Amino acid sequence: MANITKKVSWSSRADESGAVGEGTPLLNGSEQRRLSRQPSEGGSIFQIGRLSTVDLEEEITSEEDSLAGRPKEIPHNEKLLSLKYESLDYDNIENQLFLEEERRMSHMGFRCLEISRWVVCGLIGFLTGLIACFIDIVVEELAGFKYQVVKENIEKFTEVGGLSISLLLWAVLNSAIVMVGAIIVAFFEPIAAGSGIPQIKCYLNGIKIPRVVRLKTLLVKVFGVICSVVGGLAVGKEGPMIHSGAVVAAGVSQGRSTSLKRDFKIFEYFRRDTEKRDFVSAGAAAGVSAAFGAPVGGVLFSLEEGASFWNQMLTWRIFFASMISTFTLNFFLSVYHQKPGDLSNPGLINFGRFQGDSVAYNLYEIPLFIAMGAIGGLLGALFNVLNYWLTIFRIRYVHRPCLQMMEAMLVAAVTATVSFTMIYFSNDCQPLGPEHTEEYPLQLFCADGEYNSMATAFFNTPERSVRSLFHNQPGTYNPLTLGLFTLTYFFLACWTYGLAVSAGVFIPSLLIGAAWGRLCGILLASITSTSSIWADPGKYALIGAAAQLGGIVRMTLSLTVIMVEATGNVTYGLPIMLVLMTAKIVGDYFVEGLYDIHIKLQSVPFLHWEAPATSHWLTAREVMSSPVTCLNRIEKVGKIVDTLSNTSTNHNGFPVVVQVSGNDEPAKLCGLILRSQLIVLLKHKVFVELARSRLTQRKLQLKDFRDAYPRFPPIQSIHVSQDERECMMDLTEFMNPTPYTVPQDTSLPRVFKLFRALGLRHLVVVDDENRVIGLVTRKDLARYHLGKHGLEELQLAQT
Amino acid sequence: MANITKKVSWSSRADESGAVGEGTPLLNGSEQRRLSRQPSEGGSIFQIGRLSTVDLEEEITSEEDSLAGRPKEIPHNEKLLSLKYESLDYDNIENQLFLEEERRMSHMGFRCLEISRWVVCGLIGFLTGLIACFIDIVVEELAGFKYQVVKENIEKFTEVGGLSISLLLWAVLNSAIVMVGAIIVAFFEPIAAGSGIPQIKCYLNGIKIPRVVRLKTLLVKVFGVICSVVGGLAVGKEGPMIHSGAVVAAGVSQGRSTSLKRDFKIFEYFRRDTEKRDFVSAGAAAGVSAAFGAPVGGVLFSLEEGASFWNQMLTWRIFFASMISTFTLNFFLSVYHQKPGDLSNPGLINFGRFQGDSVAYNLYEIPLFIAMGAIGGLLGALFNVLNYWLTIFRIRYVHRPCLQMMEAMLVAAVTATVSFTMIYFSNDCQPLGPEHTEEYPLQLFCADGEYNSMATAFFNTPERSVRSLFHNQPGTYNPLTLGLFTLTYFFLACWTYGLAVSAGVFIPSLLIGAAWGRLCGILLASITSTSSIWADPGKYALIGAAAQLGGIVRMTLSLTVIMVEATGNVTYGLPIMLVLMTAKIVGDYFVEGLYDIHIKLQSVPFLHWEAPATSHWLTAREVMSSPVTCLNRIEKVGKIVDTLSNTSTNHNGFPVVVQVSGNDEPAKLCGLILRSQLIVLLKHKVFVELARSRLTQRKLQLKDFRDAYPRFPPIQSIHVSQDERECMMDLTEFMNPTPYTVPQDTSLPRVFKLFRALGLRHLVVVDDENRVIGLVTRKDLARYHLGKHGLEELQLAQT
Repeated sequence: MANITKKVSWSSRADESGAVGEGTPLLNGSEQRRLSRQPSEGGSIFQIGRLSTVDLEEEITSEEDSLAGRPKEIPHNEKLLSLKYESLDYDNIENQLFLEEERRMSHMGFRCLEISRWVVCGLIGFLTGLIACFIDIVVEELAGFKYQVVKENIEKFTEVGGLSISLLLWAVLNSAIVMVGAIIVAFFEPIAAGSGIPQIKCYLNGIKIPRVVRLKTLLVKVFGVICSVVGGLAVGKEGPMIHSGAVVAAGVSQGRSTSLKRDFKIFEYFRRDTEKRDFVSAGAAAGVSAAFGAPVGGVLFSLEEGASFWNQMLTWRIFFASMISTFTLNFFLSVYHQKPGDLSNPGLINFGRFQGDSVAYNLYEIPLFIAMGAIGGLLGALFNVLNYWLTIFRIRYVHRPCLQMMEAMLVAAVTATVSFTMIYFSNDCQPLGPEHTEEYPLQLFCADGEYNSMATAFFNTPERSVRSLFHNQPGTYNPLTLGLFTLTYFFLACWTYGLAVSAGVFIPSLLIGAAWGRLCGILLASITSTSSIWADPGKYALIGAAAQLGGIVRMTLSLTVIMVEATGNVTYGLPIMLVLMTAKIVGDYFVEGLYDIHIKLQSVPFLHWEAPATSHWLTAREVMSSPVTCLNRIEKVGKIVDTLSNTSTNHNGFPVVVQVSGNDEPAKLCGLILRSQLIVLLKHKVFVELARSRLTQRKLQLKDFRDAYPRFPPIQSIHVSQDERECMMDLTEFMNPTPYTVPQDTSLPRVFKLFRALGLRHLVVVDDENRVIGLVTRKDLARYHLGKHGLEELQLAQT
Repeated sequence: MANITKKVSWSSRADESGAVGEGTPLLNGSEQRRLSRQPSEGGSIFQIGRLSTVDLEEEITSEEDSLAGRPKEIPHNEKLLSLKYESLDYDNIENQLFLEEERRMSHMGFRCLEISRWVVCGLIGFLTGLIACFIDIVVEELAGFKYQVVKENIEKFTEVGGLSISLLLWAVLNSAIVMVGAIIVAFFEPIAAGSGIPQIKCYLNGIKIPRVVRLKTLLVKVFGVICSVVGGLAVGKEGPMIHSGAVVAAGVSQGRSTSLKRDFKIFEYFRRDTEKRDFVSAGAAAGVSAAFGAPVGGVLFSLEEGASFWNQMLTWRIFFASMISTFTLNFFLSVYHQKPGDLSNPGLINFGRFQGDSVAYNLYEIPLFIAMGAIGGLLGALFNVLNYWLTIFRIRYVHRPCLQMMEAMLVAAVTATVSFTMIYFSNDCQPLGPEHTEEYPLQLFCADGEYNSMATAFFNTPERSVRSLFHNQPGTYNPLTLGLFTLTYFFLACWTYGLAVSAGVFIPSLLIGAAWGRLCGILLASITSTSSIWADPGKYALIGAAAQLGGIVRMTLSLTVIMVEATGNVTYGLPIMLVLMTAKIVGDYFVEGLYDIHIKLQSVPFLHWEAPATSHWLTAREVMSSPVTCLNRIEKVGKIVDTLSNTSTNHNGFPVVVQVSGNDEPAKLCGLILRSQLIVLLKHKVFVELARSRLTQRKLQLKDFRDAYPRFPPIQSIHVSQDERECMMDLTEFMNPTPYTVPQDTSLPRVFKLFRALGLRHLVVVDDENRVIGLVTRKDLARYHLGKHGLEELQLAQT
């Protein structure tokens, strides 16, 4: 098994290139991998290769390299938990260096820090808003150009015949644009595929996902999403904004860019996981805020996904970033629309204003809304199941970049063809009013002064289509048009999500829902012909949109708020909430939400809010990994190097122990040290003997650790001579002297609560004399989940 | 000192009546009170008696009793921390009994529990909505009746002269109504005074405040608030809704009422602090939701004040309760207003709809808004400082119920007189339009077809006045009227808050702010006479209201959302947020928020979000209380009784230790047991000898603990014979075997984070061999706070 996993796993790649560490023998005998737990030792082989949305390989540089060693068909299993992912360290390492720095800092110093946190959040909001603005304007200009060209072409050929040339033009144009988007994603930065929401969810949950917050990812994301939307795919530009905001936050808060090799020497205090994650929360919120004009929704999104511990000041800062982001977008868009200062375009998507008496709802409509919620839940579950199968298919057969690119082009061509066919064969002509809102009214075979109604839905950016469905006068669409549109768009959107392009699923979901919701409204109005006021189709379109979106993504409180903020009217708060709840309950009965499905397919060790309810019979003893590789407080350099070089274990945290008396009594816990810290110590050769001989040696400072963060070099890149191997290292000053511990009899829910509430990475299990018994990490807790038949345990896999 | 504190403190009262425990000698020699830390040992005596809003005495039954022993002038000091308050136990006691029960429970059982949680939340929402509805209707009817009577009287005497009779009628009527309200509050349930928000904040923070969630409190609160509002005080009926919702939640979730002596034998699983506090969060949210029609704001309020750990399912349930509450209120009010099914009255206060183009704001107005926020912050700080001094005066001199009643009546009479004088001397006559919105237009000395504009502001319930200020046409009020109104109402409201009546401060704040905000709008429009559209006075009234409210209460994110939801329009989100933020920053520079001031004046050990920034140099060793009274795993009954009876310590949690070998080695920690558990054990006489001799004795179950919750009997009521004192008790089964511990070198921020994130009550400090060194409780952490000159330490007081 080891042979095969080597081809795809991160740790084995490091091993291959690790010529430096070659000479170091594996001395430490206490290493026994917990993999022996796996019943599938010699049997079936589970591994996950290059997946569609989250790519796991850290350092692939050339394409040949990544293709060479990959088996043709990659089996997968969502009942696995990948060992490849590391946790973020949300717990401060309160070692002596840190405490000294904190103690030296004055009251004023803390105040300055606080102010710079606000400044950073303001910057995050501003830049995120700018990016959203850029995407919006470029998409609008390019899409406008494209539709104009195609429209003129269609109009030219409508009368003379030969519309197939128009179709060809449209399909080729779309495919070409999508190809560009797919190439940059598939070949340069596969992690930029999809909406990015699952990745950000994982990051906020505390999982380190390689390359997810890099500048390159941001660039690919931004240009990728422009290409997908302009290319006419059934996608939205909103989801990627959340990812973009997160990247901006990670970049700005660190005050440097490793990609650009620039260090601005600012915000150095924030160079650790704790602070960085807080800022990334703010960035994600700013992204939501820019996308939907929903600052409160953004804050709630970040908190729902990320917050392990609600902190009021943090919440305020997140809110500030969100507000600035909306405001920036708003302002620049108002300038672009030549109405400077008119701040009424709060987000990328704007549902328009629901006003007047026709929008009020009545008590007897509540059951109707709930029924629509149930439909949304069912359709959402269907969508998710179809997409699940599709994703598995993609993982197995469409994992090469060129295949991915071709699939994306195929989808683009098919989308154009289907749209064209639908428009061509529909004969739903509507009169073109004097102040019509349609951007590109297609006349086609309609009489003069009329336009093809099906074309409004297809021949437009999805955002505009949603708005038309919400606000157009009753009678604008006929039921058949809406029904056909729902059907085709449903499958197109389902096929599109998961392609190797940057794209969101929010808008397609809303569009599908708005279409069938409006259909419901029209049908209801036609059944009870007495009053057509109450069944305002726009209102039902909104409810349908909420139901469909809720059925697919299953986000909860934040989604309600986002929808309410996007409609700009709180009147619909209650019905939207009821609909979303119904959709969630119905949908959850069948299958999980779309994002959760994709997270599960990546075997990410995602921690939910609570331990499974029926897990009280498990204790820390059964859950923990043991035996643990411990280090002594004063340890031989050779042993440390060997421990770190041991690729079969690849541990990241090591309890530091102290021997009390003699060898027979086990050692007592006195601290915890991380691999990254040891690497820095080794790199700077902080050895006891050196300190004695060369008095000039500089004392290691916190700054050295911060400079190395977050891309610590691998152990193989550090050269340690044979002489140095005999030196000793004193870890006292650098280890965290007060790691959180639990007794071995602690029940799993209790361990889980401690771990989750404090955002830990390592939790030491001790006996009643404070001796190290085991170590609990994220994987040990994420393994247990509640299945159909009670508590289930996922298997761990070295992929 | 002990002698004097005995007169007012809870523990000493128990001691006086504790004839049963008299014979028990104080054996345990290890008791040394941490009070010796207090430098004021023999010097100044700090104590807090019957305070205005939070009454601390548990069992006062007769008035004489409470009056007799009280010194005439009670000194106070907000640099004290009362030892009287206990923490709630948000940490589950995972003892053997609990784990057995959990392990017996099937997957289905947990699902049923979850469903019943939802049912309880639904009930909470429904009942809270009903109460809000009841208050609203009764206030509307009674106030309508009162204003009708006075109006007729005034109209009668306007022409014949002798308006002083009208004044007298008005003043007497108001005073009489307020007297009733003050009597029930001051004599029957002093904790029902005020808005109740500080008390609920404390409860959600994890502090046990006696009697705060009892049925009697609810009744007094509801009738008290009706009397205050009808009595024409400068108060609102919104704040008390939050308290009411919390009481409803505590009552419903326990499935019984101790006041009514009814036990419905349902929801027994929820009879512990953990579950109860979750439901109280939901109740508070439902209260906010009913008061302001702001379900999302309610959820955020609960989370901001209460959540130590964000849990998604809990948040959903809270949201559900909020929604049901708004919906119930909405529905019943629609029936009352004879428009059944029209769900457009979401809350008690309704700001009306801001619609149309005139509400849009422009970029250049942002600085104006910020300036208004600063004014709001200044005025708010002034309000708070005045109220602070007033409260201190009240604590010192106005602590007898009859004095409190008389003060309330005086305020009522003065309010009526001032209002009357203002109306009388104003000559701001406005034409009475055909579709005028004024409920009680007073003609007075105006021409026919006109009405006195000052009267609209004073001669009305405050809610209506706010709405008039927001929505009346430009030109309805003249600047002088508004200026005078602001001035008088400011001082009236300031005087009123803190009276012994149930009343909220939200509406008065909004009213003051709306008045000066509208004034600002008018002045701005008159300065730049070119365009009167942009300075729509209603818009500026809204901004002013937000600024003033923010300046006084300083609630943050939730307040923004509440304001946005109450206006029913998200357009104002950004300006409201900017205004609230400015108001908070400016206000915080001078003085804390009103609720925080009142909490501080009660010396409540309130835990903030984080430890003070500069407290890294403190460690658990310096913070903890020691020595700790420990119990052995198998302990003599006599010792337990003596420990519990020791009134000088009154500990609530006892580490359980086990002696390893011989006496010389200190004992190791093996668990933690609570006073309440020991009391139940003693009551059921769970002694080892008894178990051996009488085999029939029933095994103690979790149910026995739940039945005793939350009013555990005092130790004095439990009779233990001399024979029984020699028996042994085995605590193994009942203690929490895995209490959270920290090493003694842990820094204060780290201890704080653990304590706060998990909602602990006791945190055991151990050495590196797991021996008990000390115990950290809430008071030990709340003592440290950041003052003007760096870290300050509050003193502890036995009051």
